[in-house]
This record gives sequence, structure tokens and C-alpha cells, in this order.
Amino acid sequence: MSRYWSDVVQRLTPYVPGEQPQHPRLIKLNTNESPYPPSPRVLDAIHSIDGDALRRYPDPESSALRVAFAEAAGLQPEQVFLGNGSDEVLAHVFLGLLRHDAPLLFPDISYSFYPVWCDLYGITGETVPLRDDFSIAVVDYTRPNGGIILPNPNAPTGLLLGLDDVRTLLEANRQSVVVIDEAYIDFGGESAVRLVDQYDNLLVVQTLSKSRALAGLRVGVAFGQAKLIDGLQRVKNSFNSYPLDAVAQRAVLASLGDGRWFQESCEKVIASRVRLTAGLVELGFTVVPSSANFVFASPGAGRDAQALFLALREQGIIVRHFAKPRIGDFLRITVGTDEQCDALLDALSGLLAAL
Amino acid sequence: MSRYWSDVVQRLTPYVPGEQPQHPRLIKLNTNESPYPPSPRVLDAIHSIDGDALRRYPDPESSALRVAFAEAAGLQPEQVFLGNGSDEVLAHVFLGLLRHDAPLLFPDISYSFYPVWCDLYGITGETVPLRDDFSIAVVDYTRPNGGIILPNPNAPTGLLLGLDDVRTLLEANRQSVVVIDEAYIDFGGESAVRLVDQYDNLLVVQTLSKSRALAGLRVGVAFGQAKLIDGLQRVKNSFNSYPLDAVAQRAVLASLGDGRWFQESCEKVIASRVRLTAGLVELGFTVVPSSANFVFASPGAGRDAQALFLALREQGIIVRHFAKPRIGDFLRITVGTDEQCDALLDALSGLLAAL
Repeated sequence: MSRYWSDVVQRLTPYVPGEQPQHPRLIKLNTNESPYPPSPRVLDAIHSIDGDALRRYPDPESSALRVAFAEAAGLQPEQVFLGNGSDEVLAHVFLGLLRHDAPLLFPDISYSFYPVWCDLYGITGETVPLRDDFSIAVVDYTRPNGGIILPNPNAPTGLLLGLDDVRTLLEANRQSVVVIDEAYIDFGGESAVRLVDQYDNLLVVQTLSKSRALAGLRVGVAFGQAKLIDGLQRVKNSFNSYPLDAVAQRAVLASLGDGRWFQESCEKVIASRVRLTAGLVELGFTVVPSSANFVFASPGAGRDAQALFLALREQGIIVRHFAKPRIGDFLRITVGTDEQCDALLDALSGLLAAL
Repeated sequence: MSRYWSDVVQRLTPYVPGEQPQHPRLIKLNTNESPYPPSPRVLDAIHSIDGDALRRYPDPESSALRVAFAEAAGLQPEQVFLGNGSDEVLAHVFLGLLRHDAPLLFPDISYSFYPVWCDLYGITGETVPLRDDFSIAVVDYTRPNGGIILPNPNAPTGLLLGLDDVRTLLEANRQSVVVIDEAYIDFGGESAVRLVDQYDNLLVVQTLSKSRALAGLRVGVAFGQAKLIDGLQRVKNSFNSYPLDAVAQRAVLASLGDGRWFQESCEKVIASRVRLTAGLVELGFTVVPSSANFVFASPGAGRDAQALFLALREQGIIVRHFAKPRIGDFLRITVGTDEQCDALLDALSGLLAAL
């Protein structure tokens, strides 16, 4: 604590991201990164950067990128907002679109950054319990609110909410903004982007960090009708005019141009997820049906998830464990390559046999 | 306007950055970019980026970079804070260290983003008039306040405040944070970084965009005692865990390693500034003594600065004009290469002869 800190700093409990150990020999299945490198076109774009692109400010509006995202989504550029990772996009969304007198609703089990942004911006957050099977009960989101946000597929469960349910949510909440946080939508879900033109209260947020294998570059995107996007632009232009650097802008443009790489990469992850799920079930795990690039799995009665997490860590395999109500018995495991998944399954098998 | 916007969005008047036209043949002297490319080591670092650096999240703490900045400044890594451009650093500073009950003081003529951040975070800003010669009267900053921020050298005047005056300011305001915003300090000023260990109320902010020729990469840095930096870390970790991408981290590390390129590049800009100033004086301009990579110059009585700005623009030369009280008669001209400065002087000479 310091007398120089503002009140807001005194009350903050910052978010803690999954660890990023720098030892290259670890099997890192803790932050839902892609196990595959990005499209070769991305590397070509980065390797052709010259000094002029660096000494000059980048395009503050990332215009070329907004056009490309709009074309891919069947929308207009003014329906696209870009930020320095989807976390920055979400931060601006919380301040610009979700801070109202009525409480913001989100699932009790969801992205653990949501309550942190509430604290940062003085927003009253109200959690809505998931059902016992971790599914979202849309009917619970009809109470008065100043906004709704939920990850779809949900994190850390991986469970998908169907587009019909999303539509029901939007219809029941025409008076507030409904944010669908689609960080993992490309691994088998159906995006709500196609509903943007029908609902002026819908904002869809996506990231380039997972399915595009660009976590290292920090680019996130939001889709919504022009008035919502204009609100976000006003926040962005009152915070930092140039959130996306010149390298990231060019690299993401190159990534969007390689649809084939994207599709193949997602398909490989989905196939490995099926394989990993089967392996975990064989070891007695309960696995939540996942539409993401991770699985949420409980080792079952008499087997301590946190102990397994720590034991795996000692063997150089890092997964994620949340010591929180309702999910303390689960591990969140990123879908790696088949080789990485096999190494995990072997390690788990050994650990469980030794119990 | 939209009913979905939060109150804060309704009240914002966003910052408008200098234009970034994409026509390569323009002579662009409007955003204080370096006329020279960054160190070749920076390009080498970027051109050796591989897929693993992109698919993985970057180090959220930019640890290697903090160590390098600390070593260069004679400080400890926990006295260094990094952000996505100094604008992001400053935004966090406003929210985390400058939002208090008493008003924040800054010069009436200074960086025009300051009042925007005040609006964004609900901070009462109070402007303190510069003297008639645009110098900062430190004695005017002794009234009760919740913080002080000033650019040094000031922008858009280019005037430097000496380190003795900075020290006086710090002594007179031990109860509040004094932020010295040193975007242009490398072009002839003496940095207050050397005072960090003596004053727990001092925060020094710098950018890699000007003297390091890395505007395209978006990296800014703050130096202060560990408690101040910890306050900023708490805001950062409640906003976006990964503000600096992997490419920027490596590139800036390479830039810090090339002291010779840095020194030569700054010296060239300073020499061109002297030359440009002499040329402008010869054309009858009044030029404020500059310690920055730009000059602030008034064409003098009977010559309309805004008309000159527009006429230069038609000839493909872009400088900056602020239609604001006290400075409407001035042009802010970035120091380009000698060739660019000569082209500007030629154009001005022609325009003035035609009056």
C-alpha cells in the first residue's frame, strides 16, 4: 500500500494469468495456446518488416485489418473493433458498454478476469450459478441487469451454448448489451457474429490468440452494430490512440488471408481433443463435453485434482487447477499435439496407479 | 449517442492524434517520428522471430526488458514499468496514481491527451498557465493538488525545464505524485531518472517512439520507486496481463543493446534542429528554443499560421497546427532529415514571398 495510490488501486485484486515459464522442454498445457505455429504467411509478413514501418506510428484505426475482418464476417468495417488482445477489448467493453446502474450478470464459473474488470471500473457484478452439469440456464438471465457477459464456449468448462439459446438471451434483454466472449468458438461452435445485424444489443468478442496461434502478438476483435463499436472507439481514443503495432497489423492481415491453414489447424486440434477425451475417460476421468481447445476433467472420487496438478508439474507437464468453489476437483487441460496429450496421459496413468 | 453507452462514453471527447496518411511521397513532419530507421539490430531481432514466439503468450512481465531498462538507468527491475506505448503507461498512471480528491495540475499548454484521461477516469484537472514565454513557473505548482504532470521538454513548445526546477517541484509536493513525461528528453535534456532513488513521489515516463525510432512498435516505460511501480502493476494486471507482444519485447531489447546507433541518431536530429531553427529565423519566424525533435515556430505578425499549415499540406508537407488559445499563431514542425527540412524551408519561402 502507498499513500500515493488512488482508491481504485487499494481495492484491486489483480488477475493472475497462467504461468509462462521460459523452459522450452516443458509440456505446456496451461494457457490454451495453439500447439501449432501460425500460418507461414504470418512469418513472411513479419520477416519483411522494414525500418519505415517501425519508425512511423502505425495506422491508429487499423483500417486494412478492419476491412479484412469485416469481409470475413460479412459485416461492414464500422462494425469491427480491434484491440491489443481480447483482454484489452474486454476492458474497454466493461468501461464503455457494461458500466450502468443495474448489475452486470455473468456465470459464477466463467472467465476469472470479469470480476477484476468490475473492480477496476466500479461495476457491480452479479454472478448467476451454472446448473449442476455446468450448463448455462438462459432463463436465469431475465432479471433486471445493466448488461450480460458470458464466454461461449464457456471457460474453463468448454461447454457450448447453442445459437438458439444466445438468441433467446438477446430477445429477453433488449434493454442491455449482451456480450458473447467467443475466445474458443473456432473449435466447433457456431459464432453469434451472424446475429450482429439483427440485434443492436449484441457484441461478439474474439481473439487471435487461440485458433490463429497468435497469442504472442496480442490482437483481439469485437463485432457489433456501428453504435456499439463507436462507443468502444470513443473509449479507445480516450485511452491509447495506437493499440495495435505495425507488425501485429501486418501479421494478422496475413493470417486472415490463409483460410486453409486456419481450417486444418482447427481440425487437428478438434481431432486431438476427441482422442484426449477418450484417453482421460479410460483413466476414469469425468470430462465435460468440450467445444474448445481444452478439456475440463475431474479425476473422480478419492483422487485429488490439486495433487495431480502438482505432481504433473514436477514431471514438467503444466496444466491448470483453479482452487475455487465447485471446480476445485477439476483440471483444465489444453489440447496439445497428440504426442503432448499422450505424454500427459502416460504421466496421469503412472500417478493414478501409484495412488 | 446510444442508450447502451455508459455515462463515461457520453461525456468523452476523444484525443485526435496527428494524421497518418499512407502516401509514401509526403514529407511527414507532423507526429515527431524519427527521420531515421531504428538500429539494424532491431530488424535482425524481428526477422528472426519464429512460430513458437507467436503461438505462445509473451512474458506478461516483460522481465528481460525490465532488467535491461533498469541496468541502463542504474535502477532495479522493480523500479521499471512497461506498457503498450507511453500513452498506455500514462493512462494507467492517471487511473492508478493521479486520481485523488484534490485536482491534478498540469500546464495550460501541454500534451492534449491529459484532459482526455481526466475525463475518462473522472479526475478533476486544473490547468496552470505557462508564462508568456511558454516557460513553466514552478512556483505556480505549490497550491494544494492530488498530483502534477508535465511534459519535459514540454510539448508542443519544446522548452526544457532544468533538473533543479524539477527538484524544486518534487520538494514542494512531497504529498503527491509528480509525473515527468519525458517523451523528448533524449534530444538534449537531462532526465529526472537520476532522481528516482531520492524521491518516492517521482514518476518518470519515457517512450521508445521518438529517439529509438520505434513508434510502430508501441512501447513506453516508467521509472519510479518500487511502491509506485507496484501500484501501476496492479492496474496493468487488472486491465490486460500481456500488454507487450513478443515481437516488441525482443525488438526493444535489441534496440537497448545498440547505444552507438542511439547516440548518433539523436546527434543527427539535434544538428538538424539547429539548422532548421536558423532557416526559420532567417524567414522571419520566431522559434521557441527547443530541446525536442520538433520546433514550435510562429511566422510572425500578418502571417496566418493556419493558412501556412494548409498551404504546406497542399504541397505534400504535413506539419501540425493547434487551433487553440495562445498557440494558434504557431506551427509545430518535426525535425526531419536535412533534405526534408530544406524542402520545408523552400516551400515556406515561396509561400511567404507570395503573400
